[in-house]
Amino acid sequence: MGFQKPPGTQDALPGIAETWQFVERTARDLCRRFHFREIRTPIFETTELYRRGVGETTDIVEKEMYTFEDRGKRSMTLRPEGTAGVVRAYVENKLYGEPDLAKLYYIGPMFRYERAQAGRYRQFHQFGVEAIGSADPALDAEVIALGYGFYKELGLSGVTVEINSVGTPAVRAAFRAKLLDFLLPMKDSLCEDCQSRIERNPLRVLDCKVDQHKFADAPSILDSLDEECTAHFARVRECLDAMNIPYAVNPRLVRGLDYYTHTAFEYKAQGIGAIDTVGGGGRYNGLVADIGGDDRPGVGLGIGLERTLLLLESQGVKPPVGSPVDIYLIAMGERAEREAPAIVQRLREAGIAVERDYQGRKTKALFKAADRAGATYAAILGDDELDRGEIALKNMASQEQRNVPLDGLIEALRTSITE
Amino acid sequence: MGFQKPPGTQDALPGIAETWQFVERTARDLCRRFHFREIRTPIFETTELYRRGVGETTDIVEKEMYTFEDRGKRSMTLRPEGTAGVVRAYVENKLYGEPDLAKLYYIGPMFRYERAQAGRYRQFHQFGVEAIGSADPALDAEVIALGYGFYKELGLSGVTVEINSVGTPAVRAAFRAKLLDFLLPMKDSLCEDCQSRIERNPLRVLDCKVDQHKFADAPSILDSLDEECTAHFARVRECLDAMNIPYAVNPRLVRGLDYYTHTAFEYKAQGIGAIDTVGGGGRYNGLVADIGGDDRPGVGLGIGLERTLLLLESQGVKPPVGSPVDIYLIAMGERAEREAPAIVQRLREAGIAVERDYQGRKTKALFKAADRAGATYAAILGDDELDRGEIALKNMASQEQRNVPLDGLIEALRTSITE
Repeated sequence: MGFQKPPGTQDALPGIAETWQFVERTARDLCRRFHFREIRTPIFETTELYRRGVGETTDIVEKEMYTFEDRGKRSMTLRPEGTAGVVRAYVENKLYGEPDLAKLYYIGPMFRYERAQAGRYRQFHQFGVEAIGSADPALDAEVIALGYGFYKELGLSGVTVEINSVGTPAVRAAFRAKLLDFLLPMKDSLCEDCQSRIERNPLRVLDCKVDQHKFADAPSILDSLDEECTAHFARVRECLDAMNIPYAVNPRLVRGLDYYTHTAFEYKAQGIGAIDTVGGGGRYNGLVADIGGDDRPGVGLGIGLERTLLLLESQGVKPPVGSPVDIYLIAMGERAEREAPAIVQRLREAGIAVERDYQGRKTKALFKAADRAGATYAAILGDDELDRGEIALKNMASQEQRNVPLDGLIEALRTSITE
Repeated sequence: MGFQKPPGTQDALPGIAETWQFVERTARDLCRRFHFREIRTPIFETTELYRRGVGETTDIVEKEMYTFEDRGKRSMTLRPEGTAGVVRAYVENKLYGEPDLAKLYYIGPMFRYERAQAGRYRQFHQFGVEAIGSADPALDAEVIALGYGFYKELGLSGVTVEINSVGTPAVRAAFRAKLLDFLLPMKDSLCEDCQSRIERNPLRVLDCKVDQHKFADAPSILDSLDEECTAHFARVRECLDAMNIPYAVNPRLVRGLDYYTHTAFEYKAQGIGAIDTVGGGGRYNGLVADIGGDDRPGVGLGIGLERTLLLLESQGVKPPVGSPVDIYLIAMGERAEREAPAIVQRLREAGIAVERDYQGRKTKALFKAADRAGATYAAILGDDELDRGEIALKNMASQEQRNVPLDGLIEALRTSITE
């Protein structure tokens, strides 16, 4: 018998882990350019935080949370998303007392107990940013631009941006009533999902894949916006235009979370199965107050990294990798074996990536191992070389071989590797 | 009222998060040199894995695990350490079928419900490596050297290495009997901890801080080693000597986990409170078979990163940081405000780190903000500059200011920033 990973989780083995590193490096570099700084919050939080911060009536809180009681009898939940924890940290650490707005990013695991399907895991990973402390619509546009830039910098094509305004809670309440007038008469003809959602969250019904064709004459939230909402949305679009970020306005776009106000947006892409949303976000002007802080406006995004990796794979984008190993040391004979640890350690201390054999294999097998390791050079050490105080350096690509003095090895390698 | 982080967890805010990045970067670079490659396993595993892989009678499994039932009624546990998950992944993904041994590293959160004290958290973070597939004692020495190099590369001093051999299970059973003969007669005079441990794990009694002075005449495990164990341990020391890694042999060193065989080692440091062990590891030749795989020998280490950060702090080591922001854009007037998004976006697309104001502040406040952001330059855009198609570039350190054509800004910055 053997142990298995929990259902809905993955192992990232060497070969895939490097793609994760590439994706995270890209996210970090983009955040540097946009001056977002990293924040790391705990993997679990009090359950009450998510009830409050994500919303009691969301699928996440109703059905998908990993909730447990800790040994102190407190109810804790593995974080199902990143925003609530970041806002909690913003409030608890009094970042609202700083003169500048907080521009924060996070990268890490999230947990939702969902049905397994392509690109959807129970432990999944998100890259997200949160800008808290400004209501400036230019900031909404910059957050959208950051996400758009993320896919572009990774070398992905075909990722599109959709935006909408979901207004203020007052605007949304008025629109909700108008929408129910339209939807309730056709309720019996709608799919099961829509029927169960219709009273709870009629805005999300418009997004239904099954019934969408029935909603051609549905009222649009954009016609219900008040003056402030209209001006905010117009300025967001103006900034996106100025920044050359292509987008489509989708008046039916509603995110799965309750807290959004004004701008909502999604990134869409084809090629990863039934799901086409790969990331999204929006403005959340009431959330900080809901979580117990001074009322500060915020805007953020979250990007699914499993889906990003699926996109990379479907588009055949490979992360740029250098040679993983500079030197594969081949020690021939007992004397060389005794010398190997010191030589290897000296090279590694000098910053050189070195591998050698620990399985007692024969010379021929070792050249193959050097090849598998992607070594730039094989360094061969035998009795002859030791007698002369030398080591043979073989270029694995060109097969050229030359002898180098042992005490000049680091210097020789530095020159060769950077050549 | 406000929400608080769970007890025993921490927020790493901007300012501290950069230190975490520095520590992780150092670990990754060291692993590159030693040719360990990253593996990422899930945050939780089946509870049974830890019962088997960590040991039923350890403090971890008995008292400290975060165990919960998932919505499918499976018992899951937040990982309390990294080795069991990595070995599970090694077996499940059949890495033993590869021609080369697996040299793996991980960095990430671990969870133990412990009493809170300095340098000890319920969510803590470890950097660890595991080399599975070779019994070569030179590999034990290289793993020890890797951990020693980690502290050194970070700029820490005073970290010492202690090593021991805990033999094979057979050797340990014989030694256990001998040790009980010594300990049982003095049982009543020992501390409570020792009394409760004495039958369960007498080897750990020798490590007791309270009673240590009573054990001067206790038998040493090194005298009980068989020929194979003695030869293995001698070769480990020989390699450490050859690599110039300083160490002390401590025959009472026993790690808190049951699975070690042959080599056990710890890194110790002063200055972070009562705890002096900052990392450690050892060889675990039976563990892969215990977890259901083919019998393969392994050796690994785990390093506590919270303790590493405390050491950095207590020794005043600051991570090397460049200027976080290249340009702080100061737009003066409505026209400049309208132009700002496009200019900022163009600079960011060119790889330049740009910040600007989103809070409607006055010019004087913006120069202060540019200073707080650590900007290299303030770029000032007013009506005059716009009329001339220019922008004023002010060096924040020297206070020198010059005008640059707007369409040559990226070029000018590239030259200036690298100057």
